[in-house]
Amino acid sequence: MPFISFEGIDASGKSTQINLLCEFLKKKEIDFLVVREPGGTSIGEKVREILLSPESHMFPETEFLLYAASRAQLVREKILPALKDKKFVIADRFADSSVAYQGFGRGIGIDKIDSINNFATLNIVPDITFIIDIPVEVSLQRKAEKRDRIELEKREFIEKVREGYHVLSKDPRFVLIDGNRDIMEVHHDIVNILKERKII
Amino acid sequence: MPFISFEGIDASGKSTQINLLCEFLKKKEIDFLVVREPGGTSIGEKVREILLSPESHMFPETEFLLYAASRAQLVREKILPALKDKKFVIADRFADSSVAYQGFGRGIGIDKIDSINNFATLNIVPDITFIIDIPVEVSLQRKAEKRDRIELEKREFIEKVREGYHVLSKDPRFVLIDGNRDIMEVHHDIVNILKERKII
Repeated sequence: MPFISFEGIDASGKSTQINLLCEFLKKKEIDFLVVREPGGTSIGEKVREILLSPESHMFPETEFLLYAASRAQLVREKILPALKDKKFVIADRFADSSVAYQGFGRGIGIDKIDSINNFATLNIVPDITFIIDIPVEVSLQRKAEKRDRIELEKREFIEKVREGYHVLSKDPRFVLIDGNRDIMEVHHDIVNILKERKII
Repeated sequence: MPFISFEGIDASGKSTQINLLCEFLKKKEIDFLVVREPGGTSIGEKVREILLSPESHMFPETEFLLYAASRAQLVREKILPALKDKKFVIADRFADSSVAYQGFGRGIGIDKIDSINNFATLNIVPDITFIIDIPVEVSLQRKAEKRDRIELEKREFIEKVREGYHVLSKDPRFVLIDGNRDIMEVHHDIVNILKERKII
């Protein structure tokens, strides 16, 4: 069964789109599993707490290795068993997030990120990855109320992450979707692309 | 200033020997810092809690990446600044623990361990590493009272870890010390070796 992922800067609407896609899959009676990063397993949720806690200064390499640890657990505990059970697996962020955030955003070499991601993921790669793209300004406005470590980061950082996603989107696995539109319009684009690629 | 580490299977007496060495350094008025793995930083202590919690099944790769994350933070937050401040740094476990435990013990390829360790540690390597060696039987007896995830592991695993340390000890950076002796005898051996190698 397919494995797809959603990527994008914070507040791009990934979760909303995943929820709409789940409704669609339910109607089609397609059995699915949604996993989120960081987290998605009980160990991963504990790692998530560390990552989102604003208490201490965390070095980029520490941050990346914590994401990789959470990812290693998620792949082995949830994603691979679900794919074996013929479930449609939807990941709310996956390995590409580290390329965009810790690679492009924080400056860790992409080759290092790829190599450690491959170790963490056993080289599994989504069949298709939707990058929900919104301007940085829109992201900052949408999340103005919230406060966590990542959300305290500066505009410049988010710009670099977005640029990273634009670079990634040149690979045919990725589909860049304009997320600064009506929610249902975005949803229909996603469903159409999944149909075109014969994933649903 | 020197950077030294202590390794060995659980209950080998590393902490006791580190305490005795600290007393010795205090008398000599040598400024030192002791760090422990996993932990040693506020982020690392949170990672330690996850690692020592027996709740969920943790995959070896997850375990290793969590150790690597804690190590990356420890190197950048504590070890490198202390070495810059001319402190004598003593690590209660360091990168070699992952070679022994996750490499030899759990079967992750040593080349993968080394490569991710190098990423985590910025390639810093202790000047000397003492492996406090005791028979597995002695280790199991000494810690019979305690219960945590690692300590519930089987004898076979600990045997493999000990074998891993024996393999490592062939490299001249390592000194294998018989830890199944009087505590003060072990201590004097350690001090003598540090003097011979002109580390103190």
